[in-house]
Amino acid sequence: MTPPIVTFLSDFGAGSGYPAQMKGVVLQKLPAAQLVDLSHEVPHFDVLWGALLLEACVPHFPRQAVHCAVVDPGVGTDRRGLCVVDPEGRRLVGPDNGLFTPFMGEGARAFALEDPRHVPSPESATFHGRDLFAPVAAFLAGGGDPEWLGPRVESPVRLRWPEAAREGTGLRGECLAVDPFGNLVTSLRAADLAGRPVREVRVEGRAARFVRTFGEGAAGELLALVGSGGRIEIAVREESAAARFGLERGAAVMLALD
Amino acid sequence: MTPPIVTFLSDFGAGSGYPAQMKGVVLQKLPAAQLVDLSHEVPHFDVLWGALLLEACVPHFPRQAVHCAVVDPGVGTDRRGLCVVDPEGRRLVGPDNGLFTPFMGEGARAFALEDPRHVPSPESATFHGRDLFAPVAAFLAGGGDPEWLGPRVESPVRLRWPEAAREGTGLRGECLAVDPFGNLVTSLRAADLAGRPVREVRVEGRAARFVRTFGEGAAGELLALVGSGGRIEIAVREESAAARFGLERGAAVMLALD
Amino acid sequence: MTPPIVTFLSDFGAGSGYPAQMKGVVLQKLPAAQLVDLSHEVPHFDVLWGALLLEACVPHFPRQAVHCAVVDPGVGTDRRGLCVVDPEGRRLVGPDNGLFTPFMGEGARAFALEDPRHVPSPESATFHGRDLFAPVAAFLAGGGDPEWLGPRVESPVRLRWPEAAREGTGLRGECLAVDPFGNLVTSLRAADLAGRPVREVRVEGRAARFVRTFGEGAAGELLALVGSGGRIEIAVREESAAARFGLERGAAVMLALD
Repeated sequence: MTPPIVTFLSDFGAGSGYPAQMKGVVLQKLPAAQLVDLSHEVPHFDVLWGALLLEACVPHFPRQAVHCAVVDPGVGTDRRGLCVVDPEGRRLVGPDNGLFTPFMGEGARAFALEDPRHVPSPESATFHGRDLFAPVAAFLAGGGDPEWLGPRVESPVRLRWPEAAREGTGLRGECLAVDPFGNLVTSLRAADLAGRPVREVRVEGRAARFVRTFGEGAAGELLALVGSGGRIEIAVREESAAARFGLERGAAVMLALD
Repeated sequence: MTPPIVTFLSDFGAGSGYPAQMKGVVLQKLPAAQLVDLSHEVPHFDVLWGALLLEACVPHFPRQAVHCAVVDPGVGTDRRGLCVVDPEGRRLVGPDNGLFTPFMGEGARAFALEDPRHVPSPESATFHGRDLFAPVAAFLAGGGDPEWLGPRVESPVRLRWPEAAREGTGLRGECLAVDPFGNLVTSLRAADLAGRPVREVRVEGRAARFVRTFGEGAAGELLALVGSGGRIEIAVREESAAARFGLERGAAVMLALD
Repeated sequence: MTPPIVTFLSDFGAGSGYPAQMKGVVLQKLPAAQLVDLSHEVPHFDVLWGALLLEACVPHFPRQAVHCAVVDPGVGTDRRGLCVVDPEGRRLVGPDNGLFTPFMGEGARAFALEDPRHVPSPESATFHGRDLFAPVAAFLAGGGDPEWLGPRVESPVRLRWPEAAREGTGLRGECLAVDPFGNLVTSLRAADLAGRPVREVRVEGRAARFVRTFGEGAAGELLALVGSGGRIEIAVREESAAARFGLERGAAVMLALD
């Protein structure tokens, strides 16, 4: 028999004790659950970073996993709690603040966390990750139906989610985030290339070489490559590209294609 | 069937390899155990911080969980190993140095780790977390009785554990610790208010506003609120209260009540 | 029934999302696996540190555990993927770059990860930890035979692995690594003493006192002791020996024996 799987993502810090409290709550209902941390080191209140990490991690888990995510600058305000069911049936639970944007494509459904028969009262909750989202994740992982949580939400909050833009025969994009190694994740994806070879890459006007792997780079050379999540990344071999070239979120990236 | 649950707390650092060794030892006896990290980022040798984290985390776990905790400035000295069984039957294992103070209320029992039939010899142990406390935690989680570990300890070491003090019609307390977000945890609890509204809060003489949630605070405003663990906390919305107002452990907190 | 056990070690950072992706892949095949992090905080590309951590952690796990380790400066180059089976039957999976040196004693066997029936194609892999080593670890943990992975490797890459050298009646060694507490791990082991008492210890010419436990040290005193992994360590009680005495990897250690 396969155990229920619940994953956790937050900006709490793994050592803060908060992720542990969420796990304790899930174990109260599902003592044999498979519990996995995606990350608790999302930069504080950085919802876009959280969304990119979910995009990178969630597809590698079994479909039946429930993903409980809390990056929540609006905690204590009126923002809604949400369960998103993506087109492939993956379930995510957390605040309605755009954190689940990458899973809101055509065919996704979203439900408000409102039905008092299955959802703890948010008013009594002082720590929504533990008191609201974790119990709902346990409810779903234990076989509960997302439709029982509350009414459909037709327009959940979505982040600005930059996609590749055509520019002449090439593509224009931007750096979305800097990972812990100083690599920059961009808004451009391997799929955007549509199989066309990359002739030239410019990052904030500076030339980068398009390579298949880090290993091909010379020392200090600015590289562009398709990262492990399918996004084009900007990197320097064994170094931080962000630090070496002063690159930040928002830096412009241009691809010239053959 | 529910698996045995063992949690771990230490000041070793999650990446040091020491928590992993403790888990390996537990898995030797209980390969299907549910293993959960509370935190391995307790500031080095900070027993009070460890005790506060245990207070915040342990009540959210199923009762049958065994909590293995090591913050242990006295390792290698004569300090005793201890198993505490709190009034609700929760079991904690670690050094007898006050780490379990919050669980030593009326009705708690404590046992020395001494009986060679069930407890490895501390003399042969070079790393008590792995060689002594982890095997005892596995013994308990696997169904062993705390009474088999050794004689009752009538006066286990207790930390100074500041409680709210009356001052006129109000309450006086102090900041006990600073969490990773720069919030300050105090010695005052929601229960100390006994339902009376808070008229005024002063932290080291500076006025703070008593709110229900972070979300109500203005930018840069000093706030007091009941935190997720039931303790009154001092905070600034989306900022570190400790850094902004130069507050530290020991800072005085005064509540005027209606 | 005992679940399969898979451990993970890397230099990715626990919060990077990469360890989570590796776990997701393992759970696709083995949803009830026991997953344990050894460490994801190996200093970036520090293969020797990774090897020392594996040496310290792996022996404490049940024999049937599979250890998936990725510290891999050569990712994207031609370096081979490897499965090592040590003389006691412990299985380790990762890059062929010396990371498994401590497990390559007399009687160990190593296999290249090459057979397309059981090993994903490294060419299609952009993230070998997730796309190559994790599936192989799951294959082994689920009962697969290491011999099915590919041909025997007779000369896997080995790290320089300093052993104790005789010097007169004593031993000469060196500091191999600094742990998170500032303790220095050396190339000298308890076993090298062969039961002879230690008369004198010198670290870069400075006298250190040989003690049984940290607790015996005076404030600021340079100590040498047998660490929890059986290696001689250099330490200062409740302080960083590395910081206080300016000691680094490579520092010379001399033991005079009676």
